[in-house]
Amino acid sequence: MGALDFRAFIRAKRDGATHSPDEIRGFIRAYSARQVPDYQASAWLMAAFLRGLDVDETAALTGALIDSGRVFEWASLGRPSADKHSTGGVGDKVSLPLAPLVAACGVMVPMVSGRGLGHTGGTLDKLESIPGFRTTLDADAMRAQLDRIGVVMVGQGPDLAPADGLLYALRDVTSTVEFEPFIVSSIVSKKIAEGAGALVYDVKCGNGAFMRTLAGATHLAQRLVDTTRSMGRVAKAMVTDMSQPLGRACGNALEVRESIELLRGGGPADVRELTLDLAARMLLGAGADATLEAARARAANVLDSGAAYERFVAMVEAQGGRAAEVAERDGLARAAMVTLVTAPRAGTLAAVDTFGLGELLVAIGAGRRAKEDAIDPAVGVVVHARVGDTLAKGAPLAELHLAGPDGEAVARAEACFTIGDERVAAPALTLATID
Amino acid sequence: MGALDFRAFIRAKRDGATHSPDEIRGFIRAYSARQVPDYQASAWLMAAFLRGLDVDETAALTGALIDSGRVFEWASLGRPSADKHSTGGVGDKVSLPLAPLVAACGVMVPMVSGRGLGHTGGTLDKLESIPGFRTTLDADAMRAQLDRIGVVMVGQGPDLAPADGLLYALRDVTSTVEFEPFIVSSIVSKKIAEGAGALVYDVKCGNGAFMRTLAGATHLAQRLVDTTRSMGRVAKAMVTDMSQPLGRACGNALEVRESIELLRGGGPADVRELTLDLAARMLLGAGADATLEAARARAANVLDSGAAYERFVAMVEAQGGRAAEVAERDGLARAAMVTLVTAPRAGTLAAVDTFGLGELLVAIGAGRRAKEDAIDPAVGVVVHARVGDTLAKGAPLAELHLAGPDGEAVARAEACFTIGDERVAAPALTLATID
Repeated sequence: MGALDFRAFIRAKRDGATHSPDEIRGFIRAYSARQVPDYQASAWLMAAFLRGLDVDETAALTGALIDSGRVFEWASLGRPSADKHSTGGVGDKVSLPLAPLVAACGVMVPMVSGRGLGHTGGTLDKLESIPGFRTTLDADAMRAQLDRIGVVMVGQGPDLAPADGLLYALRDVTSTVEFEPFIVSSIVSKKIAEGAGALVYDVKCGNGAFMRTLAGATHLAQRLVDTTRSMGRVAKAMVTDMSQPLGRACGNALEVRESIELLRGGGPADVRELTLDLAARMLLGAGADATLEAARARAANVLDSGAAYERFVAMVEAQGGRAAEVAERDGLARAAMVTLVTAPRAGTLAAVDTFGLGELLVAIGAGRRAKEDAIDPAVGVVVHARVGDTLAKGAPLAELHLAGPDGEAVARAEACFTIGDERVAAPALTLATID
Repeated sequence: MGALDFRAFIRAKRDGATHSPDEIRGFIRAYSARQVPDYQASAWLMAAFLRGLDVDETAALTGALIDSGRVFEWASLGRPSADKHSTGGVGDKVSLPLAPLVAACGVMVPMVSGRGLGHTGGTLDKLESIPGFRTTLDADAMRAQLDRIGVVMVGQGPDLAPADGLLYALRDVTSTVEFEPFIVSSIVSKKIAEGAGALVYDVKCGNGAFMRTLAGATHLAQRLVDTTRSMGRVAKAMVTDMSQPLGRACGNALEVRESIELLRGGGPADVRELTLDLAARMLLGAGADATLEAARARAANVLDSGAAYERFVAMVEAQGGRAAEVAERDGLARAAMVTLVTAPRAGTLAAVDTFGLGELLVAIGAGRRAKEDAIDPAVGVVVHARVGDTLAKGAPLAELHLAGPDGEAVARAEACFTIGDERVAAPALTLATID
């Protein structure tokens, strides 16, 4: 395409036309080569946002983003592989126990994760609260570790779907982030490029998630699955609750601790349930088990046997983390002070403002507002009360792990819990599945 | 506004909100100061294009564009002033006889014009086909000439609505040109800044104009008038036919010749009619006459008296043009060859592809595809057949004034004329007026 053709490309979408796959590929190829200026790309982003992209256009965009970089290939290692992607929420540390668990079940997990931004945490930040843990490995090191341990957890290198990185940065500053086809193509392109044979999506739904409604979350889950399958990969999805934090711990070192508890046979019930449900789908998708039930039962056995924990420790060691300190649990950072937030009245916990808790986490240093912000691995919130719980006045709602006294944080935390008089059912964890 | 606020500004329009005047002013002020990057501005342009801008937003945008530069003020010269703006078409040379005519009637005309781009010609290009004519004058020279001769015809300096120039360049490359509120704010801001007290808009309508439908053209005319009036200036508008070229001559020197014919008492009837109709509205708007009829009668008298022609010659001399050569008419460039295009069959001229003729003019060198293209003042098309004319086989349709033999141009020209068997009425010149 020449400069004039980009105008025609923008005009076509502006006027509601459907792009051919070739047009989308040509546009992304030129954008990657910096032949399309940002001001033309952003006009197209907004036109697409307001006019829409259909399933085929989304698939073409996804393919074009993949083609902008390299695609890892692990099948030659002789074992199946799988990965999971979560759309993000508060307290979602499932990747940490899940990846070594699935590896311990014989399915490789080449997991590429991101950092937290805004109210949602990021797996990389959690891993880096383990002293010494390195999240940057080159392809040879990833291959060697996958072959030896079956699991690697790293950040996205610059060579995986680089056009997605460019486009995301532009979307971020032009208010074109929250558009399903862009979200789908961004997620799927990175996951396909990372080379896993089977993908399981965990689409979070509720007031702590990007998707607030079940209809929206289910639609996104279906588009993620359809787009991934159109690229020739196995895909499944779950839509799970984010109307309260997942588990109890929110904050980086706190979440690592809770993950280790889970791997050692403890941990909150919801984290265990979701970890096993996702593991079962990864194993089934990778062809390692014949039915979901068999896969789940095997995952539960492997978890309870301690083999998943051993795999976690092996991964931490392989990536430079000080495993002994992790094993003792005291090598992880601890906050200077812990303040209890208690129920101001008796009643039933009716709702948690999960987004508000996520924003509070950013405010106390557990998350970041902008990409360049530093985070404090030690701080966070441990939630004690669950929606539907009956609470006495003064019952613990949450612990705040803080760097120092912070009365405002306590007040903000308390305001995130709505206590009422009517009975409220505990929300279901799994809202929908696509198998 | 900070960088994050621009995102909020874009998001608001993306989601269909209405901006406050302050928000629009803040955005344009920051954009003028290069504090908003082009990629954010273009995302907003597309969001506005697809979501719309209402009357108040358009007025605020217009005001903000005006405020980005200087505003000329001529009232201190002690006479009323008026100007005309045409939305552009093929063969529209009306400004050339109109401006000196109105000046000869005692109303100053500080006319700022543009160059041709694409299929429509530009007044500056036509003027520059007069040997020696300068279209760049500073404010002091404009004032002195207005005081002495009552008319000046110049190009837009960098200090009139500079934000409009920046924004137009961005619209051009992001396919956000054809949006009424942008068109209105761009036209009105420049016209207000140029300082005329009364403005008359000639909105062209038909297959050679930007506006193809009467509804669209009338709507644009009304918005131009309303927005101008909201800025405290007198405004009137005409919607006139562009389903065939205006007059006969299309091409720069050819149009200057036709303009001189008109000023000397000849010229095509439609050019004379439109010139007098527009002059009457400028005189009425400026308060120089009590009724439209009186104004038109006076303009006709002044035209027929030769006073308008004398004023034209005085202006040409004042701006460095070689008036003697113009008077003799042979000082203007002549094309190397003239080729006649004839009717391939007998019948009635049913339609002229006016846009196609405009594109042919660009192809033979009379217009430009890109701003930096050079034009050939000598070349052009003189149209002999008018819609509704009964034609014998071999009757002249048009003369092509070419730099050299060009069989393709002849074929393209012939294809622009549709000859049918049924009687067709000559199209009305004036389709609507807003007085």
